[in-house]
Amino acid sequence: MNEIERKFIADKTKMPVPSSSVDIRQGYVALDENGSEVRLREKGGMYYLTVKSGGDLERMESEIQISEEEFEKLWIFTEGRRVEKIRYKIPLEGGLVCELDIFSGALKGLVTAEVEFKDLSTAESFVPPVWFGEEVTRDSRYKNKNLAVKGL
Amino acid sequence: MNEIERKFIADKTKMPVPSSSVDIRQGYVALDENGSEVRLREKGGMYYLTVKSGGDLERMESEIQISEEEFEKLWIFTEGRRVEKIRYKIPLEGGLVCELDIFSGALKGLVTAEVEFKDLSTAESFVPPVWFGEEVTRDSRYKNKNLAVKGL
Repeated sequence: MNEIERKFIADKTKMPVPSSSVDIRQGYVALDENGSEVRLREKGGMYYLTVKSGGDLERMESEIQISEEEFEKLWIFTEGRRVEKIRYKIPLEGGLVCELDIFSGALKGLVTAEVEFKDLSTAESFVPPVWFGEEVTRDSRYKNKNLAVKGL
Repeated sequence: MNEIERKFIADKTKMPVPSSSVDIRQGYVALDENGSEVRLREKGGMYYLTVKSGGDLERMESEIQISEEEFEKLWIFTEGRRVEKIRYKIPLEGGLVCELDIFSGALKGLVTAEVEFKDLSTAESFVPPVWFGEEVTRDSRYKNKNLAVKGL
C-alpha cells in the first residue's frame, strides 16, 4: 500500500475540541540509511509491526498485526528510539480526516496534524484549515523516526 | 536471547556427507547503521521475522513466526538484499552442531560452517575439525546481510 500524506504543525489554541482519542507508543527497531524503517506500535491495546520505505509525500508501507508477547520480544530493540503520543481523529471538509498527534515525554508541546489523501491531485489541492500551522511534510526533522532518535 | 557463534569457510572436498537439509531464503527489510538488522526468512515452509542487534561473536536476537501472507507483505521490501542457500546440520564432537550453508544464485560456490556455543569459554576453547577452513567470525564481509547486499 502506498501512502499519500501531508503533515502540519497544529495550533492548539485554534483547533476544534477533539472527541475520541487513542494512546500510541511506538519505537523503531531499525532505521535504514536508504530511509526505510521498521516500526513497532501499540495502539489502543493492539500491536503492530510496520515497514515503510523511504520518501516524503508518497511511501510504500506494509503492516502486520502481532501479539503482545511478540511485541515485547521485539520492543527491547527500540530502546532510545521511542515516541509516545495521544492521537485524535478530527473530521475535515471533503470527507478528509485529520490525525492530530499530541506528543508527551521528551516531545511534550509538539502537536502535529496529518492528513491522508487518496491521490496526489487531492493532496496538492488541499486547503488547510486555519488552525493548521507550518507544513512540515518534507521536513525530515518531523518524521516520527527522527523525533524518536533526535528529539525536537 | 543472546547468540554466541563462530563461523568458518568450509572445505567441501573434506567435509562429511550431510544427511538432511532445508532450503532457506532470506532477505533484509532494514539494515541499521548501528549494525542491527531485521530479517525475513522462509525455512522449510515456515516463515520468520528476526531482529538482531549489532556485534560479532555475541549478538542479541529475537524471532517471531509469521504467516505466509504476512511474509509476502513484507518480502517486497527485501528486493536486492536476498540470499538463498541450503542448510545442512552436521553433528560435531562434544554435542556441538555445525550449520553448513551452501549458497546458490549470485553466491554460488560459497560454503560456510557456523557453530553455536552455550557460553564464551566453550566458544573460545573450540577446536575446529579439519574440514573447517579460515575463520570469518569477525569478518563482516561474511555476514549474511553483507553477502545479500554486496555479494562476495
